[in-house]
Formats: sequence, C-alpha cells, structure tokens
Amino acid sequence: MEKKSSYNVAVVGATGAVGQKIIQTLESRQFPVHELRPLASHRSVGQLVTFNGKQIPIQEAAPEAFSGIDFALFSAGGSVSEQLAPAAVEQGAVVIDNTNAFRMLPDVPLVVPEVNPHKISTHRGIIANPNCSTIQMVVALKPLHDVFGIERLIVSTYQAASGAGQSAIDELLTQTRQMLGGEQPDTNILPVKSLPKHYPLAFNVIPQIDVFEENGFTKEEVKMVNETRKILEDESIQVNATCVRVPVVYGHSESVYVEFNRPFDLQEVRQLLEQAPGIVVVDDPQQQLYPLAQDAAGRNEVFVGRIRRDLFNPNALNLWVVSDNVLKGAAWNAVQIAEYMVKTR
Amino acid sequence: MEKKSSYNVAVVGATGAVGQKIIQTLESRQFPVHELRPLASHRSVGQLVTFNGKQIPIQEAAPEAFSGIDFALFSAGGSVSEQLAPAAVEQGAVVIDNTNAFRMLPDVPLVVPEVNPHKISTHRGIIANPNCSTIQMVVALKPLHDVFGIERLIVSTYQAASGAGQSAIDELLTQTRQMLGGEQPDTNILPVKSLPKHYPLAFNVIPQIDVFEENGFTKEEVKMVNETRKILEDESIQVNATCVRVPVVYGHSESVYVEFNRPFDLQEVRQLLEQAPGIVVVDDPQQQLYPLAQDAAGRNEVFVGRIRRDLFNPNALNLWVVSDNVLKGAAWNAVQIAEYMVKTR
Repeated sequence: MEKKSSYNVAVVGATGAVGQKIIQTLESRQFPVHELRPLASHRSVGQLVTFNGKQIPIQEAAPEAFSGIDFALFSAGGSVSEQLAPAAVEQGAVVIDNTNAFRMLPDVPLVVPEVNPHKISTHRGIIANPNCSTIQMVVALKPLHDVFGIERLIVSTYQAASGAGQSAIDELLTQTRQMLGGEQPDTNILPVKSLPKHYPLAFNVIPQIDVFEENGFTKEEVKMVNETRKILEDESIQVNATCVRVPVVYGHSESVYVEFNRPFDLQEVRQLLEQAPGIVVVDDPQQQLYPLAQDAAGRNEVFVGRIRRDLFNPNALNLWVVSDNVLKGAAWNAVQIAEYMVKTR
Repeated sequence: MEKKSSYNVAVVGATGAVGQKIIQTLESRQFPVHELRPLASHRSVGQLVTFNGKQIPIQEAAPEAFSGIDFALFSAGGSVSEQLAPAAVEQGAVVIDNTNAFRMLPDVPLVVPEVNPHKISTHRGIIANPNCSTIQMVVALKPLHDVFGIERLIVSTYQAASGAGQSAIDELLTQTRQMLGGEQPDTNILPVKSLPKHYPLAFNVIPQIDVFEENGFTKEEVKMVNETRKILEDESIQVNATCVRVPVVYGHSESVYVEFNRPFDLQEVRQLLEQAPGIVVVDDPQQQLYPLAQDAAGRNEVFVGRIRRDLFNPNALNLWVVSDNVLKGAAWNAVQIAEYMVKTR
C-alpha cells in the first residue's frame, strides 16, 4: 500500500457490536478515511450507517465489494473472514481481522501495537487482532516480561456480555428485567448460541466462554494460552486460564497471578507499568482506588491495579487488569493497527 | 451440655440475612428446638419471627438474654459477638459464632463439619464458623489434601451481594432497576459500608471485599489464607486470594488453582470428590454441565466442576467451586455444627 493522504476503509460486520465501535473509533480518532464502505450480510443491505455526519448505505459483504479498498477491518465471525479475507487481499487491501480465523497461522502477525508493533511490517495481507481477553492482559504484562521474564500466568477472567455480541447484551438486559419482575428469564444466546444448553447470565456467573476442547479447557481459555505466547514471542510461558462470563455489559476484568523467573522490586513494577504505553495505573487501596469495569467502559486504555506481592513466593505478584473489551479488546486495537501503518508509512 | 431431647436455641442477629436463614434451617432440618429465642438490636424488639408455625417476638440481644440457652448462634457482627458471647458462655450456652471475632484465637475451634469435626469437642464455649469464601473451598479441598498434599492455592472469587448482608442485596436490586431505567445508581453500601467510597455493583465487578491491609490484600483475602491453614491444620499451605464482588444475589463461585506436592491421577481426583461428604460434582463439559451460582442458591452442598489438569504443571489442576454463601457459607454450617454436637453427645 502506498502512502496516501486518505484511505478507503471497508468494515465487514458493520451492524455488529464491534463493527459499530470500529466506525465510531475511525471517526473519533479522525482516521484519514477517503471512503468508508460498511459491509454486512444480505439482510442488512441498504441500512444506513452514520459516519462523519454522512449517511452511508450498507453494501453486501461479497468478494467483489473490496475493489479499491486499502484497509478491510473484519469482525463478522470466523467463517466470513475465511471466505472473504483472501478476496480482499487479492484486490490489494490490508485485512485487519478481528476473528479467530487466522490468528495462529505462522505467517500471520498477531498484533497488539503496544506490545509487538514490529510484527506489523511482516504481514502478507492479513494482520490478526487477538482475542479481547488476551489483548488487555499482554498490554499489562509486556513491560514486566521484558525486565523480569514471566515464567507462569494463572488468570481468572470476569468477562462482559458484549464479548458475545449485541444479541448477548440484549439478552442480559431482557433477562435482568424479567428477573426483577419475578419472571423466568428467556435463555437463547449465552453461553454459546450454537450449543444446545443456554443459561441465564442475569444475577449469575457462567464458567463457559466458547466451546470446550478435549482437555477440559474452553476454546477461549486455550486462546489465552496460545495467543499470549505468540504475542510475547516466548513459547516458554506457562499460561493457565479460567474464563468466566459475568453480568456486566462492557469491560472485562482479569485477576492475573504472575510468576517471574526471578525476584523483583514492587516499586519498579509500578514504575514500569506507569511508564508503559496504553496503561493507566489505578492503584491506591487506602483510597479505595482500583480499576472497575464501569469506569473502563468507553475508554481505550488498559487499567491496572491491586498490584501486590504474593505473600509466600518472592517471584510472584497479583494484578487486576480491566479494559473495555469492545474497544481495546477489539475495535480500538484494530483501528490502532491501521493508524500505526499509516503513520509509519 | 448434657444430652437432652430438645434444646433452647438463641439466634443473635435474627433479622439479618444470615439470622433469618439460620431460623429457616433449624426448622427445615427439624433441629430439636425446645425454645427458639430470636435476639436482635433494640430497634427490632417486638417484631415477630415465624418458626414451626408459631410467631415468636424478638427480644433484645443483651447479656441477660441467654439464661437457660443451650446453643447461641451469633451473626450480628464482630462487635456484638465480642460483647455478648462471653456472657452466653458464662450462662452455660455453647456459642457458634458466625463472625470474625474469635476465629483465629488458638483455643477456639474453627469448624467445617465435613473437614475437621474432631475439633468441635475441643471447644471452651465458643466454636467459630469460618468465612463463607473459605468454607466452600476447604470442603472441596479436604479430600484432595488428604491424599495428594496441597502445596499452593491460587483462588479468585466471584462473590454474591448477600455476603454483605440484606442491605447489599437491596442495594444491588435497586441499582439494577435504576440503571435499566437510565438513572444514576444510588451507592451507599458496597463495597464496605463504613468506608468513604461506594461503587455500583449492578452491571459491575468490584475487586474489594472488606477493608485493605498494609500488604495490599483485603481482610477477606487474608482470611482465606489464615482460615484455610487453620481448618486444614497445615501451616505449610501457600494461599493467594483475590476476592471480588459480582452482581449476583446468592451463591459464591470460586476459580481455584491447586498445586499438589506430587503428581496425581485425574480420575482419582474425581472419585475422591464424588465420594466426599457435602460435595456434588457437576462436571461434564461436553454436556455443558458445571456449577452455576443460580443452581446452588437454596442448596446446602458445595458444587465442584471444571475439574481439569494444568496444561504444563503435572502437579496442578483447576476447580470451579460454587455454594450458597448464606447457607453452607454461614447458616447451614452453623446449624450443622449444632447438629453434630447433638448427634454425637
């Protein structure tokens, strides 16, 4: 892609929770857009999307829709990416893919701009956006891994409904209204729409995100293992994850236990986090200051607090890591990759 | 206390979330009650409590209120226990105390009947009921610790509003209604009523339960360290806890990472859990079966699922442990101690 003053940008999945945030983020970041081309499935064609004050009709996501496109930002599910991303690349677009379709392919860079921006230039047309729960964790861990070397991570997540899309948000709100009214909640979407069993998320906690693998972990948990190692470029890091859905709309929280290869100075940890890009340290227990999902909603940063030493292991500490899963966990990370490419061109 | 056909039972804190459940549990378990004496603060005196079809007026919790009492079950806060438990003991009652007042005193047994019932007979008048988050975890761990020896625990909790009492339940429900109606939520109780800052729990996650200590852990987290070691009678166990409030009414969930002293057989772990008292194993990922807070509400058992090996450490596994925090975590554990004393007398 040559250097231009502005770019043609396609957003695939323009009606989804992430697609809408991508369009809003392109606008709020004043990304140099020449043409915005919102794409979605057949049934959304003709719906209007507002961008920079203009109404733009949605076109059908199809191979021929990428003509003249510079950046194609995909978030319409893995099968749509598998089907259409190659066509977009063939027509000269750089694909920034928010799905699981290509993340673990060796020749596809998996990028968090604060962590491994040097990987962007290695792309062959497709750059993968990591999973939301991984992105916020690696932003917090990168400055510490560089200095102390992470040996092991044990993470338990508190993930928002929006991670499962707009229909899961709607379901949570409907269920909550039903339960407050003394009714049985309707269950059709969570934890995994395509599986037979559905459970209420309202006033509940569901320890399943995505399908189960043979080893007893869910696909979401295995993603945290594999993507963390790929992004931090260190296959020796041991990751143990438990991924849990909680009745929150926006904002994933994570309880992260970090074991380093060697002892560390807690003050140095704090300084490294405070100086790192994309991180806001919110950590003053005596003032009851720590990251909260509701405070992170609508923000692009990763918030880190509850920074404390393990009481027994001199090489280990705890962190509480919170971020807006739809922004840094998806839309903002994708736009941020595009910004990086435009700025460094 | 001599063997009797029925006993006089005082419930201190009879109007609270736990006190009410104690009275209901005494009734549902058909505990041999001769006289039930509900006690509470001055402002509740004269309110009526229903027990076995009779209406019983609440009396004031005062030193002279324990005359003739065999069992005094306290759950009106630590300061009430400190003030009144000695008077109850002096008048011949056995105190089963649900507060933090006496738990760590060396001569006070801290009892979970499935785990250390032999400690009950060592009491000198006071038996302490552990903290809710500890109780359910040690029930799940005891059968495994006996066989494999636990070296380290890393636990992240998902704790229900009811753990902070009836006012916290009311606040969560009110906040939820307010937020669904587009209003700002009122915040007066959570995370800790007596501290200056309050945050909404509705559609949020709060990583603070109880006050902070100097080491950066909360008192709730430190309780999980100290109480687990005392109940399992093993000061070598390393415990790392992160205690978090989630928008759930009843039922604490816990993500527990367990590291043993040696390798283990996963099938043996499952069998040990299935055969252990007070545990229900709910663990069939392919059928989407795992413990859920909403399913545990109203039940006395501890539910264990998501049993799986760490992918890297042959000595470690994950568990997901769920129980009704107001029943097994408080009211039922207290009544269960009294039942045990009555049966083994």
